[in-house]
Amino acid sequence: MARVMRVAGIQLENVVGDIAGNARRILDGMRWAEEHEADVVVFPELALTGYPLADLVLREEFVEATLAQLRRLARDSGRMTAVVGTIDRVPPRRSWDTRDRDIAIGAAVLCDGELRGIYHKTLLPNYEAFNEARNFAPGSKPGALWRIGEAVAGISICEDSWSGDGPPEAQAGGGARILLMPNASPFHLEKPLGRRELAASVARRNGTPVVYLNCVGGQDELVFDGGSLVIGADERLLYRAPQFRTDRFCVDVPLGSDRAVTGPITTVHTRPRVAPRTPAVAESALQLSADEQVWEALVLGTRDFVRKNGASTAVLGVSGGIDSAVTAAVAADALGADMVLGVTMPGPDSPADELEDAHELARALGIGMSVIPIEGVTASVERSLGRLLEEEAMPGTREALDARTRATLLLAVADRLGHVPLATGNKSELSIGSAALFGDMAGAFAPLKDCPKTLVYRLARLRNTRALVIPERVLDRPASVQEHEMHTLPDFEVLDPIVQRYLERGETLEKLVAAGFDAALVRGVLQLVDDAEYKRRQTPPGVKVTTRAFSQDLSMPITNAWRPFQADEAELIAPGAEPGPPPWTEASAAGAEGLAGPALSGPPAGQ
Amino acid sequence: MARVMRVAGIQLENVVGDIAGNARRILDGMRWAEEHEADVVVFPELALTGYPLADLVLREEFVEATLAQLRRLARDSGRMTAVVGTIDRVPPRRSWDTRDRDIAIGAAVLCDGELRGIYHKTLLPNYEAFNEARNFAPGSKPGALWRIGEAVAGISICEDSWSGDGPPEAQAGGGARILLMPNASPFHLEKPLGRRELAASVARRNGTPVVYLNCVGGQDELVFDGGSLVIGADERLLYRAPQFRTDRFCVDVPLGSDRAVTGPITTVHTRPRVAPRTPAVAESALQLSADEQVWEALVLGTRDFVRKNGASTAVLGVSGGIDSAVTAAVAADALGADMVLGVTMPGPDSPADELEDAHELARALGIGMSVIPIEGVTASVERSLGRLLEEEAMPGTREALDARTRATLLLAVADRLGHVPLATGNKSELSIGSAALFGDMAGAFAPLKDCPKTLVYRLARLRNTRALVIPERVLDRPASVQEHEMHTLPDFEVLDPIVQRYLERGETLEKLVAAGFDAALVRGVLQLVDDAEYKRRQTPPGVKVTTRAFSQDLSMPITNAWRPFQADEAELIAPGAEPGPPPWTEASAAGAEGLAGPALSGPPAGQ
Repeated sequence: MARVMRVAGIQLENVVGDIAGNARRILDGMRWAEEHEADVVVFPELALTGYPLADLVLREEFVEATLAQLRRLARDSGRMTAVVGTIDRVPPRRSWDTRDRDIAIGAAVLCDGELRGIYHKTLLPNYEAFNEARNFAPGSKPGALWRIGEAVAGISICEDSWSGDGPPEAQAGGGARILLMPNASPFHLEKPLGRRELAASVARRNGTPVVYLNCVGGQDELVFDGGSLVIGADERLLYRAPQFRTDRFCVDVPLGSDRAVTGPITTVHTRPRVAPRTPAVAESALQLSADEQVWEALVLGTRDFVRKNGASTAVLGVSGGIDSAVTAAVAADALGADMVLGVTMPGPDSPADELEDAHELARALGIGMSVIPIEGVTASVERSLGRLLEEEAMPGTREALDARTRATLLLAVADRLGHVPLATGNKSELSIGSAALFGDMAGAFAPLKDCPKTLVYRLARLRNTRALVIPERVLDRPASVQEHEMHTLPDFEVLDPIVQRYLERGETLEKLVAAGFDAALVRGVLQLVDDAEYKRRQTPPGVKVTTRAFSQDLSMPITNAWRPFQADEAELIAPGAEPGPPPWTEASAAGAEGLAGPALSGPPAGQ
Repeated sequence: MARVMRVAGIQLENVVGDIAGNARRILDGMRWAEEHEADVVVFPELALTGYPLADLVLREEFVEATLAQLRRLARDSGRMTAVVGTIDRVPPRRSWDTRDRDIAIGAAVLCDGELRGIYHKTLLPNYEAFNEARNFAPGSKPGALWRIGEAVAGISICEDSWSGDGPPEAQAGGGARILLMPNASPFHLEKPLGRRELAASVARRNGTPVVYLNCVGGQDELVFDGGSLVIGADERLLYRAPQFRTDRFCVDVPLGSDRAVTGPITTVHTRPRVAPRTPAVAESALQLSADEQVWEALVLGTRDFVRKNGASTAVLGVSGGIDSAVTAAVAADALGADMVLGVTMPGPDSPADELEDAHELARALGIGMSVIPIEGVTASVERSLGRLLEEEAMPGTREALDARTRATLLLAVADRLGHVPLATGNKSELSIGSAALFGDMAGAFAPLKDCPKTLVYRLARLRNTRALVIPERVLDRPASVQEHEMHTLPDFEVLDPIVQRYLERGETLEKLVAAGFDAALVRGVLQLVDDAEYKRRQTPPGVKVTTRAFSQDLSMPITNAWRPFQADEAELIAPGAEPGPPPWTEASAAGAEGLAGPALSGPPAGQ
């Protein structure tokens, strides 16, 4: 019996919807694996279509075109087995509701010019950013086995391997001596470690080696970071692919112990491997630090958003502050410095040193730089409004006007020069609602959307270790949110952990207080977070890097009268601040009353 | 044995998160039903928490507070049985993925100061706007029965009744002689008829009467329209509640035929009903026309979005065009004319008659009106940009700047006066991407977001039958999208049906051509629709009125290289138009190249 299977893995960068291009890349990978005399080549989940598909999979033409492409790929397959991620049409299956689903996520097994069969993903994640149960039918043969030469393999897809008693266990129990696992596993900070633990636990539980194959590339909010793994039956790391770039590897994987085959099996081919081969050796990539991973995720996510949408250049506002400095550096790394234009839009009160810092940043990065003072525009807006409004502007409205004027100018530049406008806001701002809607967060893409302010500082320092591009003065300048708002907010070193525990770990007020945070402070912060949901709904996409990014991971009602944290919120208001600006206005956005005001009082109309 | 059950229904307007207020309204309904000597009173699905909850249900404090409130409600219940929609904690149950869910959607049965039990919703919709399988566990006792005096009742919740072989069938088969169905069923144009057919089919299939109880009110994108139904075992309509307003009713419902009780039963009480009662009579509401329903949905949705978020006044741009005229009328009907401010923001080229029409509209509606010319602001923007850019502006960029300037002014007015800014864009614009991002669609809420242009005209005519508020000239003026864009687009009378069939019915190009539409035209339109996804992601919420509203109902990837319709698109471009503006800019937004350009060409980096 065979002792070893030579497995090739193609850590592919696919493009959602680009079926022909993905097929070309898959075919290229198949040829490479044949040259390396692999027994089997594994591609990521949905390699042929891209992932995630959202409701694109409901388009009949798309499904037909994919299946036609899959048939062509099968025809072009060689004497080596290829496991190709695809969708498939299946008999309708009903979920916990009343709709039939008839499309499955599959791994097609191709060999000798034929499609030998398709494994269908059994477990469909339906939480956080995933909603596969919305459109897909689950597979009904978790224990399916594949005879490849003298070896018996199991195939399971992503979520399939996470339950501890799912398809890998059924397959190993039925006789599989190696488990092949195509994945489309998006990055967040805790993911790489989690994957390693997962793969090791599957290997340990089943006494089999595990080939965990992930894809690479940005797709809207998600970045797939690769980091594919080959783990031996003894849990030893046989290979780790690099993160954030494509990779091809070929590894001789010792099979798990010989066992009786009792599960349903499909024969792919029965050719014994006779020719002696030189051993396949592959060197594992070094593990990046957490901050390095975030940096690479931001760069890859930004690059792919711009390029896969057919553009090559970007423009952003550069203020001399830390957020725009880091965004500019990300854009320069992603697109090339000469493809990035910074625009500094000083107001009459903008400090001269910030303008200097903006220019120094641009020089150090090598990006283009233009200056457009906003005073003329804001003054003309004030003149226009002045005819209408005699009221004194409430605090916060002036800043919002400045931010929107800058957005208007930035978008006009983007329109005229054909650059993608990048927004520079960070997650802390978005959490507490301190960025003006249609202002600071206006753009096509917001690279730092999921980066808390404290992380933004760490990223700046990290980037400066490679080359000093962000002026030290930018790093030293105190963060300005406290000065602008009506609140006495704590430093970001205190704010960020509170917000993170609340959003990412779902910690209660009680638990946060027990952890040592001041109760009044926590109440105020949590209420600000809850109240800012309406702004988050209209922000651009950005790169997910934490375990819970706003939007798909965490979606709250906008209209929401649940205000458990309101009681002590007043304590946050700075003395002398205006009492209660009306909701929906920038004056109140991070403000005293907050968004969700009193619910219906008294009996509703009609009763 | 009992022949009749006196059923009260409380078509409630609840507020998401307002547990105390909802409990107060429920208690009030219970008292009313007792006064009317009902045997049972039924409230809508999730009456106690509001619906939908999205990820609010993941907040531990929220679940605890709801259950505490439910216990108080039980304590305050009287001698009549009350069926109250709530959430409940249940033993963890796994879905098609690897996560446990431990919260169910329930109908609590209260009587004599005690909680007799909770029915748990068995079928959890996970399509279109619904994603209940994300956070909720399904119930495991679909056949549960409830003995109420001398009658045996079944309770099922919303989706439970749609399968044809679900809880209602299990309950009737087990001995139920009446089926009580709490719902939270949001409006779309085909819903009211669908509900009537559904309730009749359940009654027919099971030989039982059906009490279909819906809630009322706007919640972000959804409007719950009421229209509760009581249908006899003979399928006869016993009562139909009005749509779009709260209602209370009390109806003597003849029970279905006597049958052996074989299902699991909980005794609520066994008191026979002895006292003679005067028969309960209720008169059904008239059925509104389709356009009337849409109008009421827009008014209720706008009213609730503004008011439930704690505001009372709104501001919108009024151009003299049809969209802003209809939005203004909706806002006036929703909030009261004196709570609405129109702002006309003419440019130097704005026709005088449009300005006149804007004023006439404001006078007829009785809303406030201000004029802010934009020329000063746009000229100062042009001056600022002029220093930077020598290029000639591409077509489309000038209009985008005007739109964003208007948005900046409108939002500044909103900030200063504390009004909710309403956007005036319609679904046709959003479909083909002809509205500027951060321009025409900037606002807190977009009432017409799901109304195609042809429907907007019908709504204007409908509103004018009540009082002539929209000037005839506005209705007669040709829609202007064709003039502004680079395309030779068809009239909306042709465009809207193509878009509707594509989005709402998922029709393929082939099918549309078979239906008689010009192939080149259809290709061009469908590609525009696909390419505009990025704009739709950053639009405000608006009222869903069709079967597929953008956002939750239909979500496509932004980065999407699937371009099956591209081939003949060039035929749509007007002769002499610029060849190909870059993506992501307003020049190209509805433009020649479209958004999703070429995918990765050549092998991706790193291979």
